[in-house]
Amino acid sequence: MTVNRQILLVSRPKGAATLDNFQLAAPEVPALGDGQVLVRNHYLSLDPYMRGRMNDTKSYAPPQPVDTVMIGATVGEIVESLNPDWPVGTKVAAMFGWQEYGISDGSDLRRIGDARLPLSVYLGAAGMPGVTAWYGLNKIIAPKAGETVVVSAASGAVGSVAGQLAKRAGCRVVGIAGGPEKCAYVVDTLGFDACVDYKAGRLDEDLKAALPNGADGYFENVGGAVLDAVLRRMNAHGRIALCGMIAGYEGAPVPLQAPGLLLTQRLLVQGFIVTEHLEVWPEALGALAQALASGELRYRETISQGIESAPAAFLGLLRGENFGKQVVRLI
Amino acid sequence: MTVNRQILLVSRPKGAATLDNFQLAAPEVPALGDGQVLVRNHYLSLDPYMRGRMNDTKSYAPPQPVDTVMIGATVGEIVESLNPDWPVGTKVAAMFGWQEYGISDGSDLRRIGDARLPLSVYLGAAGMPGVTAWYGLNKIIAPKAGETVVVSAASGAVGSVAGQLAKRAGCRVVGIAGGPEKCAYVVDTLGFDACVDYKAGRLDEDLKAALPNGADGYFENVGGAVLDAVLRRMNAHGRIALCGMIAGYEGAPVPLQAPGLLLTQRLLVQGFIVTEHLEVWPEALGALAQALASGELRYRETISQGIESAPAAFLGLLRGENFGKQVVRLI
Repeated sequence: MTVNRQILLVSRPKGAATLDNFQLAAPEVPALGDGQVLVRNHYLSLDPYMRGRMNDTKSYAPPQPVDTVMIGATVGEIVESLNPDWPVGTKVAAMFGWQEYGISDGSDLRRIGDARLPLSVYLGAAGMPGVTAWYGLNKIIAPKAGETVVVSAASGAVGSVAGQLAKRAGCRVVGIAGGPEKCAYVVDTLGFDACVDYKAGRLDEDLKAALPNGADGYFENVGGAVLDAVLRRMNAHGRIALCGMIAGYEGAPVPLQAPGLLLTQRLLVQGFIVTEHLEVWPEALGALAQALASGELRYRETISQGIESAPAAFLGLLRGENFGKQVVRLI
Repeated sequence: MTVNRQILLVSRPKGAATLDNFQLAAPEVPALGDGQVLVRNHYLSLDPYMRGRMNDTKSYAPPQPVDTVMIGATVGEIVESLNPDWPVGTKVAAMFGWQEYGISDGSDLRRIGDARLPLSVYLGAAGMPGVTAWYGLNKIIAPKAGETVVVSAASGAVGSVAGQLAKRAGCRVVGIAGGPEKCAYVVDTLGFDACVDYKAGRLDEDLKAALPNGADGYFENVGGAVLDAVLRRMNAHGRIALCGMIAGYEGAPVPLQAPGLLLTQRLLVQGFIVTEHLEVWPEALGALAQALASGELRYRETISQGIESAPAAFLGLLRGENFGKQVVRLI
């Protein structure tokens, strides 16, 4: 008998999410049916979008039902198979959620694996966050060489890729991140031209200094006061890829202070979620895996150990305590 | 000797604009130089954008210098000419500003005139406001037949054209206007499917009732609480053409209450000014003049008499006291 430890959502947050909203369960793994495979998940992805699913409000996806396994992307390996197309040993990405095992008929699995890349990277730069960065940068901001692009949450899973892609497109790239350590990483390791520490208390002045020619593109992961500050620096005809607004995920919406700038600067704002643009995934994933394997694209992970660590790691992610892509190691 | 009465901006508003910001002057018309023509302006256009020019702040155009003639579009007739290309009697549109006469070498004049259309309409539905509506609707909202489009300031110079064009594109069209008289005009004369009176104090409820299937496109002329309310009704992948935000033109910016909706509904917002898209003017003006001449496109004007009436008429426009396109008759 194999036990499948998993994390359930057992209540909805009132204001900020808490550990009480989650509960560990440990059911037995059922026997496989014809055509099914059993996947041992090696890593679970933790992403800001999950916070939205915990609420019972209108959004781009239905809310996560209470008393079910939390949604989430996973990578792992097939350990039992009654499906000849999916033999034991195959490495797969899936959406099994916050649990150690998953069962599938193969229709919702994606083959992954490149000897040069660790499995966890398929949850980050070579997975959904990477494609998100690729889409927002190339399809919305569409920067020209010589333009300036700002990226918030610049050391994070999405921002780090967006900024590096913008550098490769010949742009001046300015990151925004929380704290001197993250900012140093953004400049020294990721190669951004500058990084503004939003926790230093001089967001407006520091952004102005880092943007002598203003900003033509903005890859937005944060919202709130950071969005207000960047908006004041946008050049005419700037483009804003609205990917995340983590500042407003807990509690009340955070107003945008000066929406008139969208008009006076003739800005484009486009909200998007990458799962609605599946047509770009093959191209984007191919380009990202290649750049990662060659070492051109750098990434960093924060790894918590064991499925039981997922709730606390997730709450930390919402507070910006992770550094780079947050994953949970399940083996 | 001919006197050219004109209105100067003599001070910048502190908060709301007042009559004190303007002053009447009456200089003599100078003698023409070689190649010049003298135009007698018949009508002056009053438009919300002029309020922005009165401030000394960063916007899409430089501020109007103090002690100069207020900027503005005019239509009139050449009454003296030293330029064989521009004979006396030619009807022209120009940007002579708030004054009775203008002098030009012809380079900044546009020939207008269609026996079926009064001259003033070239300041409205067959002029800049009409092209603004055409551009925002066709190039930004780009509605498909069967979609729902909302238009604010629906009885105004821009909104009335935008909504009628959306109807002709096969859309359900809902206007927002101030007061029952304007709303009745929007539905009964302009042919919108419904109109919500934002002054009635039930904006959210009335919009919800008028939009059983939500809104796919929004032509925004107003901003403020109206924008907040429409945002709550936007469908996924909606498009917002941000043309004007008159609610924030006087005094402090009006915050946008729930910018997170731009993300969760994956909305497009595009600020624009039509003078940056001169490539569409010939096509748009041709289509508008044709639809106006045939009677398919309806319009309404509020006309004040005499250049001395311009400041008060302009302040009334900012308060929504006009009904349809606001012009000043100068003859």
